[in-house]
Amino acid sequence: MNETQKKYTVLSKVNYPADIRDLDLSDLKILCSDLRQYLIDTISEIGGHFGGGLGTVELAVALHKVFDTPKDLIVWDTGHQAYPHKILTGRKEALKKIRHLNGISGFLKRTESEYDAFGAGHASTSISAALGMAEGSKINKDKRKVVAVIGDGAMTGGMAYEAMNNSGIYKADLIVVLNDNNMSIAPNVWQISNYFTEMISHPDYNKFRGQVWDLTGKLDQFGDRIRKVASRLENGIKAVVTPGMLFEALGFRYFGPINGHNIHQMVKIFDQIKNLKGPILVHAITQKGKGYKPAEGHVQRLHASTPFDKVTGQAIKNGPSTASYTSIFGEALVEIVKENKKVVGITGAMPDGTGLDNLSKVFPDNYYDVGIAEEHAVTFAAGLATQGIIPVVAVYSTFLQRAFDQIVHDVALQKLHVVFALDRAGLVGADGPTHHGTFDLTYLRMIPGMIIMAPKDEAELRDMLYTAIKAKCPVALRYPRGNALGVEVKEGFTELEIGKSEELRSGGDVALLALGSMVDYSLKAAVKLSEVGINCTVINMRFAKPLDTQKLDEITTRFNKIVTLEENSLVGGFGAGIVEYFSDKNYKNDILRIGLPDKFVDHGTQVELHKILGIDPDGIAERVKYFFENKNIMYGVTV
Amino acid sequence: MNETQKKYTVLSKVNYPADIRDLDLSDLKILCSDLRQYLIDTISEIGGHFGGGLGTVELAVALHKVFDTPKDLIVWDTGHQAYPHKILTGRKEALKKIRHLNGISGFLKRTESEYDAFGAGHASTSISAALGMAEGSKINKDKRKVVAVIGDGAMTGGMAYEAMNNSGIYKADLIVVLNDNNMSIAPNVWQISNYFTEMISHPDYNKFRGQVWDLTGKLDQFGDRIRKVASRLENGIKAVVTPGMLFEALGFRYFGPINGHNIHQMVKIFDQIKNLKGPILVHAITQKGKGYKPAEGHVQRLHASTPFDKVTGQAIKNGPSTASYTSIFGEALVEIVKENKKVVGITGAMPDGTGLDNLSKVFPDNYYDVGIAEEHAVTFAAGLATQGIIPVVAVYSTFLQRAFDQIVHDVALQKLHVVFALDRAGLVGADGPTHHGTFDLTYLRMIPGMIIMAPKDEAELRDMLYTAIKAKCPVALRYPRGNALGVEVKEGFTELEIGKSEELRSGGDVALLALGSMVDYSLKAAVKLSEVGINCTVINMRFAKPLDTQKLDEITTRFNKIVTLEENSLVGGFGAGIVEYFSDKNYKNDILRIGLPDKFVDHGTQVELHKILGIDPDGIAERVKYFFENKNIMYGVTV
Repeated sequence: MNETQKKYTVLSKVNYPADIRDLDLSDLKILCSDLRQYLIDTISEIGGHFGGGLGTVELAVALHKVFDTPKDLIVWDTGHQAYPHKILTGRKEALKKIRHLNGISGFLKRTESEYDAFGAGHASTSISAALGMAEGSKINKDKRKVVAVIGDGAMTGGMAYEAMNNSGIYKADLIVVLNDNNMSIAPNVWQISNYFTEMISHPDYNKFRGQVWDLTGKLDQFGDRIRKVASRLENGIKAVVTPGMLFEALGFRYFGPINGHNIHQMVKIFDQIKNLKGPILVHAITQKGKGYKPAEGHVQRLHASTPFDKVTGQAIKNGPSTASYTSIFGEALVEIVKENKKVVGITGAMPDGTGLDNLSKVFPDNYYDVGIAEEHAVTFAAGLATQGIIPVVAVYSTFLQRAFDQIVHDVALQKLHVVFALDRAGLVGADGPTHHGTFDLTYLRMIPGMIIMAPKDEAELRDMLYTAIKAKCPVALRYPRGNALGVEVKEGFTELEIGKSEELRSGGDVALLALGSMVDYSLKAAVKLSEVGINCTVINMRFAKPLDTQKLDEITTRFNKIVTLEENSLVGGFGAGIVEYFSDKNYKNDILRIGLPDKFVDHGTQVELHKILGIDPDGIAERVKYFFENKNIMYGVTV
Repeated sequence: MNETQKKYTVLSKVNYPADIRDLDLSDLKILCSDLRQYLIDTISEIGGHFGGGLGTVELAVALHKVFDTPKDLIVWDTGHQAYPHKILTGRKEALKKIRHLNGISGFLKRTESEYDAFGAGHASTSISAALGMAEGSKINKDKRKVVAVIGDGAMTGGMAYEAMNNSGIYKADLIVVLNDNNMSIAPNVWQISNYFTEMISHPDYNKFRGQVWDLTGKLDQFGDRIRKVASRLENGIKAVVTPGMLFEALGFRYFGPINGHNIHQMVKIFDQIKNLKGPILVHAITQKGKGYKPAEGHVQRLHASTPFDKVTGQAIKNGPSTASYTSIFGEALVEIVKENKKVVGITGAMPDGTGLDNLSKVFPDNYYDVGIAEEHAVTFAAGLATQGIIPVVAVYSTFLQRAFDQIVHDVALQKLHVVFALDRAGLVGADGPTHHGTFDLTYLRMIPGMIIMAPKDEAELRDMLYTAIKAKCPVALRYPRGNALGVEVKEGFTELEIGKSEELRSGGDVALLALGSMVDYSLKAAVKLSEVGINCTVINMRFAKPLDTQKLDEITTRFNKIVTLEENSLVGGFGAGIVEYFSDKNYKNDILRIGLPDKFVDHGTQVELHKILGIDPDGIAERVKYFFENKNIMYGVTV
C-alpha cells in the first residue's frame, strides 16, 4: 500500500463513476472525506477554484452513483463547483495541472471529457442546456436522464428563470438540483432565498404552522367530516407554504430542502426521483468550503485562489507585487464619488473582482450589487442615467457580452451617460476561453456614439475614469486583469481630451499605434528593435473610438510602415477601425495588425499566452522586424 | 361644435394629462370610449400596432389621472401598447403620421416627448429602467413616483425577473403594473400565468377555499380561541394561495387581480397605492383589442397591421405582391423537416413573424416557442445540438443581440451545430431604430468558426438554409424584412459550397462585391452605370464569413476600383472584413465601402430609408460613378 492508497483509502480505488456504483454507504462516506482532502491537498499547492468544490463533494458522488453517467447527462452550471466531478471522472491526476497551460480547464469542457456534458464559465446557462438535452433525448428516444446543477448565485440570472419557465411549459423530463449555499461568489442577492429564510424563521410562520397542528388535533373530537376537512387543510397549507411553491408555480415538482452533505440522504433522494416524469427540482442545502475551516470562515476569499498554506488558509506570496488595475479602479471610483454623490457603482455579484467592494464599504448608498444579472444591470444604469445619476457599471469584459443588446438599445440609442468599466479585458490567463475579454473592442466599436478608451497604465486608468465621468454620452474603458505596471500615481485627476492620442517615443522607421496593454509592450519592443537598428515611433492611441484621425492623417505622411497593436480580436477591433479609416481615406501605407487571432484562446498564464500568440515584447519586435524588412508578401497575418 | 368635437366629445378637449385630472368618472368613461374610437379611426387608415393599445386605454387614462406626469415617470414596456398614452400626451394629431417618415415613432421615444420616460422596442426592459429611475429619484430626493407597465408576454423575458428580484432586494419605491391580457404577441408561453389560471379554475382549489369558509363558519360555535385560530388560518391561506404569492416572494406587495377595463376601479387602486412604500405589483386583467370586435377575434393578426377596413377588420390590399422572405423560409424549413426529423425550429414568441407558424402546424413536435427569451433560446438550442439535433433558431436580427454572449459562449466555443435564421436583417422600415437589424454581420463576424451567409433572393435563401443544415458548425443566415424578389423557386434544394461567391455580371471598370439584399440593387445600379459608360462586374459574395478569398485575390488583379455593398453597419461589417483582408495581404486597390453609417437610423419605409442613405440603386450608381471618376479624395465615406 503506497502513500496515496493509505491517505485516500477509497478514492485511490476510484477513477471513474463506474467504480463507485457498487460502493456501500460507509465507503461512500469515506470517498467524500477522501475527495475533500484531495481537493485541499491539491488546490492548496497549485491554486484554483476551491470553496465551491468543497460544497459539492456529496452531490457529485451521489449523482455519479445514482445516474448512469456519461449516458445520463449532468450539466454543471458555471463549472467551478465541479472539481469533485472532475476527480471522479478520470481526471484525478490531471487536477494537479488544472488551469495551467496544457492542463485541464478550471471549468467544464466537452472536449476534455465525455462526462462534461456542457461547458460553462458564465453563470445561469445549465437549465437551458439541460432542457435542450432532455428534448433532444426525447426526439432521439434514447432515454437519457438529464440533471442540471445550479448554484443559488446563478439563480439571479434571468436565463435560469427563462429556462425554468420553459421547462414547465414543455413538462420536460428534467432534474434541476439547486445547490443552495446561500452565499455564492458574493453575499446573496437572491430575493427568493431571503424570502425562504424569512418565511421559515419568522415567528408568525411557525406559530401559524403550530396553530394548524393544534387545530387539527383539537378537531379530532368533532367527528369525521371536520377532521377530514382539517386534514386536507393542513396538507393544502403544507403544499403551498414551502419554498417549493415558487418552483411549483414554474411547473416543477419540488423536493427538499435536503442536507447536501448527507450522502445517504442525497443518494436516497436521487434514487427516488430518477424515474419520475416532468420537471423536478431538488433543493440541496450545502456549505461553500465545507470541511475546510479557513474556507468556511472566508468564503469569498477562497472562491478562487492562488496557492495557499493549507493549515492557515493564507495565500503563499511570491514577493511584493504592484497594485492591480482592479484595486486602482476601485480606489479612484471612491475618490470620485467623494466629490460627486451623483456617481454610483454597479456590479453584477462581483464586488471583489471589480474593486467595487471598496465603494460598498465607504459609500454604501452609491453602490449597487444587482446579482448575476448583467442585462438588468445595464438597463438599470440607463434608468439611473435618465435621472442625471452617473452610473459606473463595473464588469468583466466577457460578462458584459450578456448585455450587448441593452447597451445598444437602452443606453446608446438614447444617448445616455452610462460608464462601462471593463475589467479583465484581453487575455485573463488561467480562467481560459470562457473568461478572456477578447471581443469588447469589436462589440462596443460598432455601437453609434460610444466612446472607448484603454489606459496604458494605472495612472492613465484613473484619468480615463475621470474623463468618462465628465463625458455626457455612453463611455467604456477597458483594462487588463492583474497587476498594473507600478508607475507613480499622482493625486487628483486630469481630464483627457476625447479622441486624442499621445506620442511616447519617436523614431523614423515604423509607427507603432498601440492601445491599452499593448502600449507598454510596444515601448519594450521598440527598445529591442532599436538594438537592431529599427527606429520606432510609439503612439499611445488611448481611444479605440473615436480614433485620433488627425494623428492618423499625420502618421500616414510620416511613415510607410504602420503597425496597430491591441489585445482584442483582430476581427472588427481597434486595428480594423484604423484599416477601415485608411481605406475610406484611400491611404496606401503598409499596415501590420497585431492582436488576437480569429479563434478561441485556451488557458495558461497571461505571460505564456502573450508569448504563444506573439504579442509579448519579443513577439512584437520579431514581427515588426519582419514587417519592416519584407515587402509584397503576406504579413499582417494572424497567428 | 365641429365634427371632431361631436365625435370625440371628451377627447376633443384633452390634449395633455393635465386636462384629465379634473374630469369626473362619467367623463373619464367617455374619454376611454373616445380614445378607443379615435384609435380605430386612425389606425385603420394608416396602419400600426393596434390590439395592444385598445387594451391599455383605461390603464393610460387612470395612470395619467392619478400620477403627476411628466414629473412622475411612467415606463411602458416595449411601447407598442402605448398609443393611448401618446394620444393623451400631446400627440393626438401626430398619431396620424405614426411610424411614417418624419412622423412620430411607433414606440416610446425620449426625444419625442417628455412624457416618454424611457424608450423601448425590445421587451422586458421596463422594470429595470423604472428601478433605476426610482433609485435615481431617491438620490436626487425629488420624490418622483415611478410606474412600469409590463405585459404578460414580456414576463417570459429573464430581464424582467432579474429586475423584480433586484427591486425586492432594494425595497425600492416602485409600482409595476402587470398588464395581463393572457395573450401577448403569440399565445401565452408564461408558465406562471398558466399556473394562476389552473389554480383559480381548479375544482380542488375552489373546493378547498369553500371548505375553509365552511370550517370557519362551523368553528364559530366552539368559542373564541378556536375561532381566532381559524380566522388567522383563513387569512393565512388567502395570503398565500393567490397569484400574489409569487410576486410577494420577489419582495413585491401584490394588488389584484383587478379589471383593467373598469376605469373606476383602476383610478381607485392607483389612488390607494400611490403613496405606499416599497415595490408594489398591480395585476390588471385586460383584453387585447378590447372594444373592437374584429381585433378581439383575431388578436395575433391585429397585433401590428397595415391599413384595414374598420368594419370588417380586413386588410386593405395594394394589389398582388410577391411572397415574403419570412414565408419562403418557413416553407423551406417545413420541407427540410419533412426529410429530416432531427431538425427543429425555435422561436422566441414570434411564430408568425419568423414564419415558424407553418412548422408549428405541420410538425408540432419539431417546433419550440420559448417565449420572449432569446438568451435561453440559444443555449437551449446548444443543448439540443449536443444530442445531434439540428436546431434552427429563427429570430429577428435585432432580437438576437440579446443572445450575443450565448452564441459566443454556449454555441461557438463548443463548435455546436446551431443554425441562426435572422429575419429582418438590415433596415426594417416603420418599426425604426429599435428594430433595424444593422449590426448582425459585425456581432457575428467576430465569433470564431461562425459561418455567415446572406441570400441574393428567395431561391438562394432556400439553398442557404439547406446548406446551413448540412454544415457541422455554427451557421447564420440573414435576410431582409418584407417581400422577396419574386424569382422562380425551383423544387428541392442545392447545397452551396461554403465560402464560394458567384459572378453575376462582368464588366471591366469596377467590381461590385455585394452581399444579400445589395446584390439585386448592385445589378440594377450596374445597368444604370453601363448607360453612362461604366462597366461593372457584380459578384454575389454570398458569405460574409468565410470570405471567398480566392475570388478576392483574383478581383484585386482584375480591378483597381472595388466596391463592397452591404445592408449592415460599415463598422466591422462585411466590407470591413474585406478591407481587413486586403490590408493583411497588402493589396493596394481603391475600395469604396457602401453600407449603413455609424449612427442610428430613424423610421420610414425601407424604400425611403435606402434612398436617404444612398444604398438604393440610384444612390449606389451615383456613388460608384463618383468613386470611379475621382482620385485621391476622401470617398468611401459614410453618409
